[in-house]
Amino acid sequence: MGKMASEAFFVVVVVAAAAAVVLANALPVRSERGGVEKDEVNIWPMPAWVSHGRGHLYMSNDFVLSTEGSGYGDASGILKDAFHRMLAVIKLDHVVDANFSALHDQPLLQGLRIVISSPKDQLQYGIDESYKLMVPSPEKPAYAHLVAPTVYGALHGLQTFSQLCHFNFTSRVIKVHMSPWTIIDQPRFSYRGLLIATSKMKDGIAVKLPIFMDTSRHYLPLPVIRKVIDSMTYAKLNVLHWHIVDTESFPLEIPSYPKLWNGAYSTSEQYSVADAAEIVSFAQKRGINVLAEIDVPGHALSWGTGYPSLWPSKDCQQPLDVSNEFTFKVIDGILSDFSKIFKFKFVHLGGDEVDTSCWTTTPHISKWLKKNGMNESQAYQYFVLRAQNLALSHGYEIVNWEETFNNFGNKLSRKTVVHNWLGGGVAQQVVASGLRCIVSNQDKWYLDHLDTTWQEFYANEPLTNITNLKQQKLVIGGEVCMWGERIDGSDIEQTIWPRAAAAAERLWTPYDELAKDPRQVTGRLAHFRCLLNQRGVAAAPLAGQGRAAPEANRGCFW
Amino acid sequence: MGKMASEAFFVVVVVAAAAAVVLANALPVRSERGGVEKDEVNIWPMPAWVSHGRGHLYMSNDFVLSTEGSGYGDASGILKDAFHRMLAVIKLDHVVDANFSALHDQPLLQGLRIVISSPKDQLQYGIDESYKLMVPSPEKPAYAHLVAPTVYGALHGLQTFSQLCHFNFTSRVIKVHMSPWTIIDQPRFSYRGLLIATSKMKDGIAVKLPIFMDTSRHYLPLPVIRKVIDSMTYAKLNVLHWHIVDTESFPLEIPSYPKLWNGAYSTSEQYSVADAAEIVSFAQKRGINVLAEIDVPGHALSWGTGYPSLWPSKDCQQPLDVSNEFTFKVIDGILSDFSKIFKFKFVHLGGDEVDTSCWTTTPHISKWLKKNGMNESQAYQYFVLRAQNLALSHGYEIVNWEETFNNFGNKLSRKTVVHNWLGGGVAQQVVASGLRCIVSNQDKWYLDHLDTTWQEFYANEPLTNITNLKQQKLVIGGEVCMWGERIDGSDIEQTIWPRAAAAAERLWTPYDELAKDPRQVTGRLAHFRCLLNQRGVAAAPLAGQGRAAPEANRGCFW
Repeated sequence: MGKMASEAFFVVVVVAAAAAVVLANALPVRSERGGVEKDEVNIWPMPAWVSHGRGHLYMSNDFVLSTEGSGYGDASGILKDAFHRMLAVIKLDHVVDANFSALHDQPLLQGLRIVISSPKDQLQYGIDESYKLMVPSPEKPAYAHLVAPTVYGALHGLQTFSQLCHFNFTSRVIKVHMSPWTIIDQPRFSYRGLLIATSKMKDGIAVKLPIFMDTSRHYLPLPVIRKVIDSMTYAKLNVLHWHIVDTESFPLEIPSYPKLWNGAYSTSEQYSVADAAEIVSFAQKRGINVLAEIDVPGHALSWGTGYPSLWPSKDCQQPLDVSNEFTFKVIDGILSDFSKIFKFKFVHLGGDEVDTSCWTTTPHISKWLKKNGMNESQAYQYFVLRAQNLALSHGYEIVNWEETFNNFGNKLSRKTVVHNWLGGGVAQQVVASGLRCIVSNQDKWYLDHLDTTWQEFYANEPLTNITNLKQQKLVIGGEVCMWGERIDGSDIEQTIWPRAAAAAERLWTPYDELAKDPRQVTGRLAHFRCLLNQRGVAAAPLAGQGRAAPEANRGCFW
Repeated sequence: MGKMASEAFFVVVVVAAAAAVVLANALPVRSERGGVEKDEVNIWPMPAWVSHGRGHLYMSNDFVLSTEGSGYGDASGILKDAFHRMLAVIKLDHVVDANFSALHDQPLLQGLRIVISSPKDQLQYGIDESYKLMVPSPEKPAYAHLVAPTVYGALHGLQTFSQLCHFNFTSRVIKVHMSPWTIIDQPRFSYRGLLIATSKMKDGIAVKLPIFMDTSRHYLPLPVIRKVIDSMTYAKLNVLHWHIVDTESFPLEIPSYPKLWNGAYSTSEQYSVADAAEIVSFAQKRGINVLAEIDVPGHALSWGTGYPSLWPSKDCQQPLDVSNEFTFKVIDGILSDFSKIFKFKFVHLGGDEVDTSCWTTTPHISKWLKKNGMNESQAYQYFVLRAQNLALSHGYEIVNWEETFNNFGNKLSRKTVVHNWLGGGVAQQVVASGLRCIVSNQDKWYLDHLDTTWQEFYANEPLTNITNLKQQKLVIGGEVCMWGERIDGSDIEQTIWPRAAAAAERLWTPYDELAKDPRQVTGRLAHFRCLLNQRGVAAAPLAGQGRAAPEANRGCFW
């Protein structure tokens, strides 16, 4: 052990120099070691650049956070809270005992020094999420050193640091192995999302998979949503797409039109405005934006429970009545209330799977269509564009599901981000037209497709057939979707994980030889899955379908 | 609302008088209302005696704990911590707003007054777990009133109180409905257990169900064990049976024989002595005893990883070598170390599924058998009885699996509790012989039997065919068993719940017309399952096999 330690210090010098060179080097390059040797670098998602040694370090029992020399004041306590969450997560409830004899003559890490250049900590789309982590610090070997332009980059650095630390039963303290570490990291895409549905069935899937023909839909309790948000941070996902409202339920309070809340499942399965604001604040403190969705004009039947005049008629209840000015008043009211809670740059307006037949079969609407010289598809376009203008008037940029693009892409606001879901190959058409795109093709990135393996999630490449650099930039990222048909508080975690983590690395890590082939990363992802279990997240094993039970193995780690 | 409130006060008076009478009445009787009307009393497990009104109360935003006049000092903070856990659990992360206008002129509950007569708070088998809860207090209508002989009775009272409270979206505060409440409660059995295995495959099951023919076994991380313990308190279970060691793994540190730890799955999947002590303390603070098991002489192959001489031979590795004095030295050392951590009155010595063929096929052991004039079954008896004496010498009473009773019941220490698992009908033989019994018949109470429904768990009656009162007292309770073949941190919660809750009511609630027929309690158990989900426990739905995905429904509550 003593020998190992001295080796460690030797390597520090060498790598510190190397790191200096690297820091000067703008283009992140990959360590030859990083991620290649399965049992070595078990960091998920794999950072852009990794270098490590062969030594080890132990953490002092009073491992402290130091922000001296930082331009960031942490007035909101984001950094302090994250630091203490990290300590709890690496201790995993083990009893740490720094007086344990095995620590005799070992180098101790006294703390983590964090330097953040930007004093601001407003979270928003496109902020700099990069960070540099050195363990130990070349200047102060008794400290680890984390440098980041923003606190949100630092949060990612803390997550990476937590994956270098393990409770060691020989020393009874936290051990950092393979030190010294130099990690220079930044995400490949700015939008790395997970969709949760608190009211939803997806007809497209219902048609595709008989198992989803039921009309189930499930509320998610606040503690469940919070735990999902915490687990997202472990995989460096940064957008929670909250599909709040749908055909079956309207769980969120809308002060402007309070009767919309009558569409909730029950008086126990609702979210108040204050609840939603708390979720947004909880997510923001963890570097996660919340993308709120109201899906119009389809998937909105539940709106009529409180305001029946939003239905074409009692017998034909969706899509929303395009001929009724009140419909757009309500959308305007919802977006006005949204703008007070959901501070993310984007709002999602849905627009998918619209069956407009109710419009022609309902006399007063078909009369209105004739009067305005519109057919059904023109009315669908009219509705979507008018909703877009309302969103723009509240300062939002817009996300719409791809059907809007497929039907009248050239008419969409240039501030539209097209959300792909039907299949592959859509992104290249979207970016060719100059619009931005989020990739969620259901054949690869729908978590409720239990037969889609983690390898398929991992292999799904958002930039397929997009070679033009300018067009590549228009693919702002991707999102895995956890629709709610067979999901509630009882099975959401193991349906999301570990497959969402496979997509998370695709969205975070450079798409090069080290993060391309699922066969090369199986052991590392299996290790991350065990890490999630250790942290109390019910991530399913890699083998078998989504949320399969564990198979025979020699424990979780091997 | 105003009207409701005034009604509430009217009923308070009436029931306060009634309650006084009831309190004077030693024999708990059941309310005609209790549990009969599905949508009314949603308390799980159903208390021994329930009376309620038609009013409602709101909790003040600064709802306080008061222990004035209590003989109990709460020096260890058990009560204070439990009170704050309860507040968190009933708020469910909702934003409470006591200034919300709907509260205008409503009666507010200012706090909960708890009076505990015993100053001691040492948890042990057989302590008084009863409590009386009145909401509001007849004397102080602004307070709820909880009376209990011990702090552990009070903990159960807090759990019951939490089930009377619901966040109310109209008032934005916690609402107690159907007040006034008078609940007089105590458990039917003193031993209400849940087994978890951190190393185990159960050959009996392997033979029974091909799906369990694999040799899988899974470590449970400390955060997972803690969450299981917290969830047990919601159902008023009071014993965690920790099946620590088995054929495949020896995860627990044993200072007396440190190499035993070499039998752990990996260096990440271990428990230090300090970890185990922390788990015991965590459980004790929640009123839960930890029953530690070392299963001998079978299911002990992993012991030989560190001490090969415990194996009959390299090729024939279990059961433990009966002819080797070192074997009993090690057992003595383990029990000595156990006695410092596990303060429960009982230790579990296993004794199940012993295939002794290795003893006769191994020359030095068969020679030893001849020398001592023993055949295989006599040697099995010799081993079990010698282990029992070692446990007794460390101050433990003993629990053994039923094979020991089935083979030489009349030889067992009279301090033995026989643990039934093979099938029904065993308990009556055990208690007829004057020994105590714990019921866990695998056809009804094994949670890893996914095809056993909650209705079968609920209908399993420990006192079947035991009419003699003295013999009935010898059935100290029952236990549901969560063997680890297909279980790890990813699926343990939904495999345990809600079926363990069905057994929990059988063990807690008087077996009378109100808690006999599963059809009468379906709605109430479904409500409890939703409550578990709201609290972040991944309890599976009632329909379908164990841990089935949710079916179509209108949300969780209906």
